[in-house]
Amino acid sequence: MTLREKYGEWGIILGATEGVGKAFAEKIASEGMSVVLVGRREEKLQELGKNISETYGVDHMVIRADFAQSDCTDKIFEATKDLDMGFMSYVACFHTFGKLQDTPWEKHEQMINVNVMGIFAKQDRGAVINVSSLTAISSSPYNAQYGAGKSYIKKLTEAVAAECESTNVDVEVITLGTTITPSLLSNLPGGPAG
Amino acid sequence: MTLREKYGEWGIILGATEGVGKAFAEKIASEGMSVVLVGRREEKLQELGKNISETYGVDHMVIRADFAQSDCTDKIFEATKDLDMGFMSYVACFHTFGKLQDTPWEKHEQMINVNVMGIFAKQDRGAVINVSSLTAISSSPYNAQYGAGKSYIKKLTEAVAAECESTNVDVEVITLGTTITPSLLSNLPGGPAG
Repeated sequence: MTLREKYGEWGIILGATEGVGKAFAEKIASEGMSVVLVGRREEKLQELGKNISETYGVDHMVIRADFAQSDCTDKIFEATKDLDMGFMSYVACFHTFGKLQDTPWEKHEQMINVNVMGIFAKQDRGAVINVSSLTAISSSPYNAQYGAGKSYIKKLTEAVAAECESTNVDVEVITLGTTITPSLLSNLPGGPAG
Repeated sequence: MTLREKYGEWGIILGATEGVGKAFAEKIASEGMSVVLVGRREEKLQELGKNISETYGVDHMVIRADFAQSDCTDKIFEATKDLDMGFMSYVACFHTFGKLQDTPWEKHEQMINVNVMGIFAKQDRGAVINVSSLTAISSSPYNAQYGAGKSYIKKLTEAVAAECESTNVDVEVITLGTTITPSLLSNLPGGPAG
Protein backbone atom coordinates (compact mmCIF):
# COMPACT_ATOMS: atom_id res chain seq x y z
CA MET A 1 0.00 0.00 0.00
CA THR A 2 1.42 3.40 -0.93
CA LEU A 3 1.30 6.40 1.37
CA ARG A 4 -1.33 7.92 -0.94
CA GLU A 5 -3.56 4.86 -0.61
CA LYS A 6 -3.10 4.84 3.13
CA TYR A 7 -3.42 8.50 3.99
CA GLY A 8 -5.02 10.42 1.11
CA GLU A 9 -4.19 12.59 -1.86
CA TRP A 10 -2.28 15.48 -0.35
CA GLY A 11 0.45 15.99 2.20
CA ILE A 12 1.75 19.26 3.59
CA ILE A 13 5.31 20.01 4.63
CA LEU A 14 5.78 23.03 6.84
CA GLY A 15 9.33 24.12 6.18
CA ALA A 16 9.82 22.36 2.85
CA THR A 17 12.43 24.51 1.16
CA GLU A 18 15.48 22.38 1.81
CA GLY A 19 17.05 19.83 4.12
CA VAL A 20 14.76 17.55 6.11
CA GLY A 21 11.54 19.12 4.84
CA LYS A 22 12.57 18.74 1.24
CA ALA A 23 13.45 15.10 1.87
CA PHE A 24 9.96 14.51 3.34
CA ALA A 25 8.33 16.13 0.32
CA GLU A 26 10.25 13.91 -2.06
CA LYS A 27 9.51 10.80 -0.04
CA ILE A 28 5.73 11.22 0.05
CA ALA A 29 5.69 12.29 -3.60
CA SER A 30 7.53 9.10 -4.48
CA GLU A 31 4.61 7.25 -2.94
CA GLY A 32 2.03 9.11 -5.00
CA MET A 33 1.04 11.95 -2.71
CA SER A 34 0.71 15.47 -4.04
CA VAL A 35 2.56 18.01 -1.96
CA VAL A 36 1.81 21.38 -0.40
CA LEU A 37 5.14 23.07 0.13
CA VAL A 38 5.20 25.81 2.75
CA GLY A 39 8.09 28.13 3.47
CA ARG A 40 9.42 31.64 3.10
CA ARG A 41 11.34 31.41 -0.15
CA GLU A 42 8.68 31.15 -2.83
CA GLU A 43 11.05 30.88 -5.75
CA LYS A 44 12.95 27.93 -4.29
CA LEU A 45 9.66 26.23 -3.38
CA GLN A 46 8.30 26.70 -6.92
CA GLU A 47 11.45 25.15 -8.33
CA LEU A 48 11.22 22.23 -5.91
CA GLY A 49 7.52 21.73 -6.68
CA LYS A 50 8.20 21.73 -10.41
CA ASN A 51 10.95 19.13 -10.01
CA ILE A 52 8.77 16.95 -7.82
CA SER A 53 5.83 17.08 -10.22
CA GLU A 54 8.07 16.21 -13.18
CA THR A 55 9.82 13.40 -11.34
CA TYR A 56 6.89 11.73 -9.60
CA GLY A 57 3.83 12.79 -11.63
CA VAL A 58 2.03 14.35 -8.66
CA ASP A 59 0.52 17.80 -8.15
CA HIS A 60 2.09 20.48 -6.04
CA MET A 61 1.01 23.71 -4.39
CA VAL A 62 3.31 26.36 -2.99
CA ILE A 63 2.32 28.56 -0.07
CA ARG A 64 4.61 31.40 0.86
CA ALA A 65 4.32 31.77 4.60
CA ASP A 66 6.49 33.06 7.38
CA PHE A 67 5.88 31.17 10.61
CA ALA A 68 6.82 34.29 12.54
CA GLN A 69 3.70 36.07 11.21
CA SER A 70 0.52 35.71 13.22
CA ASP A 71 -1.75 35.21 10.22
CA CYS A 72 0.37 32.37 8.88
CA THR A 73 -1.83 29.53 10.12
CA ASP A 74 -5.06 31.07 8.79
CA LYS A 75 -3.41 31.56 5.43
CA ILE A 76 -2.34 27.94 5.21
CA PHE A 77 -5.75 26.59 6.23
CA GLU A 78 -7.56 28.86 3.79
CA ALA A 79 -5.34 27.78 0.91
CA THR A 80 -5.68 24.05 1.61
CA LYS A 81 -9.22 23.70 2.94
CA ASP A 82 -10.58 21.96 -0.17
CA LEU A 83 -7.77 19.43 -0.44
CA ASP A 84 -8.00 15.79 0.63
CA MET A 85 -5.27 16.13 3.22
CA GLY A 86 -3.69 13.12 4.87
CA PHE A 87 -0.13 13.92 5.86
CA MET A 88 1.54 16.71 7.73
CA SER A 89 5.10 17.20 8.80
CA TYR A 90 6.22 20.16 10.83
CA VAL A 91 9.91 20.64 10.15
CA ALA A 92 10.31 24.40 10.34
CA CYS A 93 12.23 25.86 13.19
CA PHE A 94 14.04 28.92 14.35
CA HIS A 95 17.70 28.95 15.16
CA THR A 96 18.10 32.12 17.15
CA PHE A 97 21.37 32.12 19.00
CA GLY A 98 21.73 34.45 21.92
CA LYS A 99 20.56 34.94 25.46
CA LEU A 100 16.94 34.14 26.13
CA GLN A 101 15.79 37.64 26.89
CA ASP A 102 17.03 38.92 23.53
CA THR A 103 15.02 36.55 21.35
CA PRO A 104 11.42 36.66 20.10
CA TRP A 105 8.75 33.96 20.36
CA GLU A 106 7.28 31.53 17.91
CA LYS A 107 4.10 29.66 18.62
CA HIS A 108 2.73 28.51 15.33
CA GLU A 109 3.79 24.92 15.44
CA GLN A 110 1.31 24.29 18.23
CA MET A 111 -1.60 25.99 16.51
CA ILE A 112 -0.93 24.13 13.31
CA ASN A 113 -0.70 20.80 15.06
CA VAL A 114 -3.92 21.34 17.00
CA ASN A 115 -5.92 22.28 13.95
CA VAL A 116 -4.52 19.46 11.89
CA MET A 117 -5.29 16.89 14.57
CA GLY A 118 -8.91 18.07 14.47
CA ILE A 119 -9.13 17.42 10.74
CA PHE A 120 -7.37 14.06 10.83
CA ALA A 121 -9.40 12.87 13.81
CA LYS A 122 -12.63 13.75 12.01
CA GLN A 123 -11.67 11.79 8.89
CA ASP A 124 -10.03 9.05 10.98
CA ARG A 125 -7.12 8.95 8.56
CA GLY A 126 -3.80 10.69 8.28
CA ALA A 127 -0.25 10.89 9.47
CA VAL A 128 1.67 13.49 11.39
CA ILE A 129 5.44 13.40 11.64
CA ASN A 130 6.90 16.17 13.74
CA VAL A 131 10.58 16.88 13.91
CA SER A 132 12.23 17.31 17.28
CA SER A 133 15.90 17.47 18.22
CA LEU A 134 18.38 16.10 20.71
CA THR A 135 18.37 19.59 22.19
CA ALA A 136 14.89 18.65 23.43
CA ILE A 137 16.69 16.24 25.75
CA SER A 138 19.88 18.13 26.55
CA SER A 139 18.42 21.66 26.61
CA SER A 140 20.15 24.31 24.56
CA PRO A 141 21.91 27.23 26.31
CA TYR A 142 22.24 30.38 24.16
CA ASN A 143 19.56 28.87 21.97
CA ALA A 144 17.19 28.27 24.86
CA GLN A 145 13.94 28.78 23.02
CA TYR A 146 14.93 26.30 20.35
CA GLY A 147 15.60 23.39 22.70
CA ALA A 148 12.53 24.24 24.76
CA GLY A 149 10.34 24.41 21.67
CA LYS A 150 11.71 21.12 20.40
CA SER A 151 11.05 19.60 23.82
CA TYR A 152 7.49 20.92 23.66
CA ILE A 153 6.92 19.41 20.26
CA LYS A 154 8.45 16.09 21.34
CA LYS A 155 6.32 15.65 24.46
CA LEU A 156 3.23 17.00 22.75
CA THR A 157 3.60 14.58 19.89
CA GLU A 158 4.35 11.61 22.15
CA ALA A 159 1.17 12.31 24.08
CA VAL A 160 -0.95 12.76 20.98
CA ALA A 161 0.49 9.56 19.51
CA ALA A 162 -0.77 7.70 22.58
CA GLU A 163 -4.17 9.40 22.28
CA CYS A 164 -4.40 8.22 18.66
CA GLU A 165 -3.27 4.67 19.32
CA SER A 166 -6.63 3.03 18.57
CA THR A 167 -7.45 5.27 15.60
CA ASN A 168 -6.29 5.30 11.99
CA VAL A 169 -4.27 8.45 12.54
CA ASP A 170 -0.53 7.76 12.80
CA VAL A 171 1.51 10.18 14.85
CA GLU A 172 5.23 10.20 15.49
CA VAL A 173 8.05 12.49 16.39
CA ILE A 174 11.59 12.07 15.22
CA THR A 175 14.40 13.33 17.41
CA LEU A 176 17.26 14.36 15.19
CA GLY A 177 20.82 14.89 16.24
CA THR A 178 22.99 17.33 14.35
CA THR A 179 22.01 17.01 10.73
CA ILE A 180 24.07 18.74 8.09
CA THR A 181 21.45 20.73 6.21
CA PRO A 182 21.69 24.13 4.51
CA SER A 183 19.77 25.64 7.43
CA LEU A 184 22.18 24.28 10.01
CA LEU A 185 25.22 25.46 8.12
CA SER A 186 23.89 28.96 7.57
CA ASN A 187 22.82 29.34 11.21
CA LEU A 188 25.99 28.25 12.92
CA PRO A 189 27.76 31.01 14.84
CA GLY A 190 30.17 32.59 12.43
CA GLY A 191 27.94 31.99 9.44
CA PRO A 192 28.11 29.52 6.54
CA ALA A 193 30.60 26.74 7.16
CA GLY A 194 30.00 25.48 3.64
CA MET B 1 22.49 35.78 54.51
CA THR B 2 18.71 35.90 54.10
CA LEU B 3 16.97 35.66 50.76
CA ARG B 4 16.10 39.34 51.09
CA GLU B 5 19.73 40.30 51.55
CA LYS B 6 20.76 38.13 48.65
CA TYR B 7 18.05 38.92 46.11
CA GLY B 8 16.22 42.12 47.07
CA GLU B 9 13.08 43.38 48.73
CA TRP B 10 10.29 41.75 46.76
CA GLY B 11 9.50 38.36 45.28
CA ILE B 12 6.62 37.44 43.00
CA ILE B 13 4.79 34.13 42.94
CA LEU B 14 2.73 33.44 39.85
CA GLY B 15 0.07 31.06 41.02
CA ALA B 16 0.28 31.76 44.75
CA THR B 17 -3.19 30.90 45.96
CA GLU B 18 -2.49 27.48 47.39
CA GLY B 19 -0.27 24.42 47.21
CA VAL B 20 3.26 24.83 45.92
CA GLY B 21 2.91 28.54 45.19
CA LYS B 22 1.65 29.30 48.67
CA ALA B 23 4.58 27.34 50.13
CA PHE B 24 7.02 29.43 48.08
CA ALA B 25 5.41 32.66 49.29
CA GLU B 26 5.70 31.61 52.91
CA LYS B 27 9.30 30.49 52.46
CA ILE B 28 10.58 33.73 50.98
CA ALA B 29 8.53 35.78 53.47
CA SER B 30 10.15 33.83 56.28
CA GLU B 31 13.48 35.11 54.94
CA GLY B 32 12.36 38.70 54.96
CA MET B 33 11.11 39.20 51.39
CA SER B 34 7.85 40.99 50.73
CA VAL B 35 5.57 39.06 48.40
CA VAL B 36 3.53 39.81 45.30
CA LEU B 37 0.82 37.17 45.16
CA VAL B 38 -0.66 36.56 41.72
CA GLY B 39 -3.64 34.37 40.96
CA ARG B 40 -7.30 34.33 40.03
CA ARG B 41 -8.97 34.20 43.44
CA GLU B 42 -8.44 37.64 44.90
CA GLU B 43 -10.16 36.98 48.19
CA LYS B 44 -8.04 33.93 48.99
CA LEU B 45 -4.90 35.83 47.99
CA GLN B 46 -5.80 38.78 50.24
CA GLU B 47 -6.31 36.41 53.12
CA LEU B 48 -2.98 34.71 52.45
CA GLY B 49 -1.21 38.07 52.13
CA LYS B 50 -2.65 39.28 55.41
CA ASN B 51 -1.55 36.11 57.18
CA ILE B 52 1.93 36.35 55.71
CA SER B 53 2.33 40.02 56.69
CA GLU B 54 1.18 39.31 60.22
CA THR B 55 3.37 36.26 60.62
CA TYR B 56 6.58 37.48 59.02
CA GLY B 57 6.36 41.29 59.22
CA VAL B 58 6.77 41.79 55.47
CA ASP B 59 4.66 43.70 52.94
CA HIS B 60 2.39 42.03 50.45
CA MET B 61 0.64 42.97 47.22
CA VAL B 62 -2.15 41.02 45.56
CA ILE B 63 -2.65 41.02 41.81
CA ARG B 64 -5.73 39.36 40.42
CA ALA B 65 -4.70 37.93 37.08
CA ASP B 66 -5.87 35.10 34.89
CA PHE B 67 -2.97 33.61 32.94
CA ALA B 68 -5.41 32.70 30.18
CA GLN B 69 -6.00 36.41 29.44
CA SER B 70 -3.70 38.05 26.93
CA ASP B 71 -3.24 41.28 28.93
CA CYS B 72 -2.17 39.39 32.03
CA THR B 73 1.56 39.95 31.62
CA ASP B 74 1.20 43.69 30.98
CA LYS B 75 -0.98 44.01 34.02
CA ILE B 76 1.57 42.30 36.27
CA PHE B 77 4.49 44.35 34.97
CA GLU B 78 2.56 47.61 35.32
CA ALA B 79 1.63 46.83 38.91
CA THR B 80 5.14 45.85 39.99
CA LYS B 81 7.38 48.13 37.94
CA ASP B 82 8.43 50.31 40.87
CA LEU B 83 9.28 47.44 43.20
CA ASP B 84 12.80 46.23 43.96
CA MET B 85 12.16 42.77 42.55
CA GLY B 86 14.55 39.88 43.15
CA PHE B 87 12.67 36.62 43.07
CA MET B 88 10.16 35.01 40.74
CA SER B 89 8.56 31.62 40.77
CA TYR B 90 6.22 30.47 38.06
CA VAL B 91 4.03 27.79 39.58
CA ALA B 92 0.73 28.32 37.77
CA CYS B 93 -0.41 25.72 35.35
CA PHE B 94 -3.40 24.43 33.51
CA HIS B 95 -4.74 21.00 34.02
CA THR B 96 -6.93 20.49 30.99
CA PHE B 97 -7.75 16.87 30.54
CA GLY B 98 -8.93 15.74 27.15
CA LYS B 99 -7.71 15.20 23.63
CA LEU B 100 -5.27 17.71 22.30
CA GLN B 101 -7.51 19.17 19.65
CA ASP B 102 -10.19 20.06 22.20
CA THR B 103 -7.98 22.20 24.44
CA PRO B 104 -6.91 25.85 24.27
CA TRP B 105 -3.39 27.28 24.47
CA GLU B 106 -1.53 29.03 27.17
CA LYS B 107 1.63 30.96 26.48
CA HIS B 108 2.12 33.38 29.26
CA GLU B 109 4.72 31.54 31.23
CA GLN B 110 7.23 32.13 28.48
CA MET B 111 6.49 35.83 28.14
CA ILE B 112 6.75 36.33 31.85
CA ASN B 113 10.02 34.46 32.08
CA VAL B 114 11.58 36.38 29.24
CA ASN B 115 10.66 39.77 30.64
CA VAL B 116 11.79 38.86 34.11
CA MET B 117 15.15 37.60 32.86
CA GLY B 118 15.68 40.98 31.22
CA ILE B 119 15.14 42.77 34.52
CA PHE B 120 17.26 40.41 36.62
CA ALA B 121 20.08 40.40 34.09
CA LYS B 122 20.16 44.19 34.10
CA GLN B 123 20.40 44.40 37.89
CA ASP B 124 22.70 41.30 38.00
CA ARG B 125 20.76 39.98 40.98
CA GLY B 126 17.74 37.77 41.44
CA ALA B 127 16.42 34.26 41.49
CA VAL B 128 14.00 32.36 39.29
CA ILE B 129 12.54 29.05 40.35
CA ASN B 130 10.24 27.52 37.76
CA VAL B 131 8.09 24.51 38.46
CA SER B 132 8.11 21.61 36.03
CA SER B 133 6.68 18.13 36.36
CA LEU B 134 7.56 14.50 35.77
CA THR B 135 5.09 14.67 32.87
CA ALA B 136 7.78 16.79 31.23
CA ILE B 137 9.79 13.59 31.02
CA SER B 138 7.08 10.98 30.49
CA SER B 139 4.74 13.07 28.28
CA SER B 140 1.11 13.25 29.28
CA PRO B 141 -1.54 11.68 27.02
CA TYR B 142 -5.04 13.21 27.37
CA ASN B 143 -3.32 16.11 29.04
CA ALA B 144 -0.86 16.61 26.21
CA GLN B 145 -0.47 20.33 26.44
CA TYR B 146 0.33 20.14 30.11
CA GLY B 147 3.25 17.72 29.77
CA ALA B 148 4.51 19.56 26.71
CA GLY B 149 4.31 22.92 28.47
CA LYS B 150 6.09 21.53 31.50
CA SER B 151 8.76 20.10 29.21
CA TYR B 152 9.12 23.50 27.59
CA ILE B 153 9.57 25.24 30.90
CA LYS B 154 12.05 22.59 32.07
CA LYS B 155 14.33 22.79 29.05
CA LEU B 156 13.98 26.56 28.82
CA THR B 157 14.96 26.99 32.44
CA GLU B 158 17.86 24.52 32.22
CA ALA B 159 19.26 26.47 29.28
CA VAL B 160 18.80 29.86 30.95
CA ALA B 161 20.42 28.53 34.12
CA ALA B 162 23.49 27.67 32.09
CA GLU B 163 23.43 31.10 30.44
CA CYS B 164 23.38 32.72 33.89
CA GLU B 165 26.11 30.59 35.39
CA SER B 166 28.70 33.35 35.68
CA THR B 167 26.22 36.02 36.80
CA ASN B 168 24.55 36.76 40.14
CA VAL B 169 21.19 35.57 38.84
CA ASP B 170 20.25 32.14 40.15
CA VAL B 171 17.96 30.04 37.98
CA GLU B 172 16.56 26.60 38.63
CA VAL B 173 13.69 24.37 37.71
CA ILE B 174 12.14 21.82 40.02
CA THR B 175 10.57 18.74 38.52
CA LEU B 176 7.75 17.64 40.77
CA GLY B 177 6.11 14.27 40.79
CA THR B 178 2.52 13.93 41.88
CA THR B 179 2.07 16.42 44.70
CA ILE B 180 -1.12 16.36 46.69
CA THR B 181 -2.28 19.97 46.44
CA PRO B 182 -5.81 21.41 46.31
CA SER B 183 -5.32 22.03 42.59
CA LEU B 184 -4.39 18.42 41.88
CA LEU B 185 -7.30 17.06 43.84
CA SER B 186 -9.85 19.31 42.21
CA ASN B 187 -8.56 18.61 38.71
CA LEU B 188 -8.43 14.83 38.83
CA PRO B 189 -10.89 13.12 36.48
CA GLY B 190 -14.03 12.61 38.49
CA GLY B 191 -13.53 15.78 40.52
CA PRO B 192 -12.46 16.42 44.10
CA ALA B 193 -11.01 13.33 45.76
CA GLY B 194 -10.72 15.17 49.07
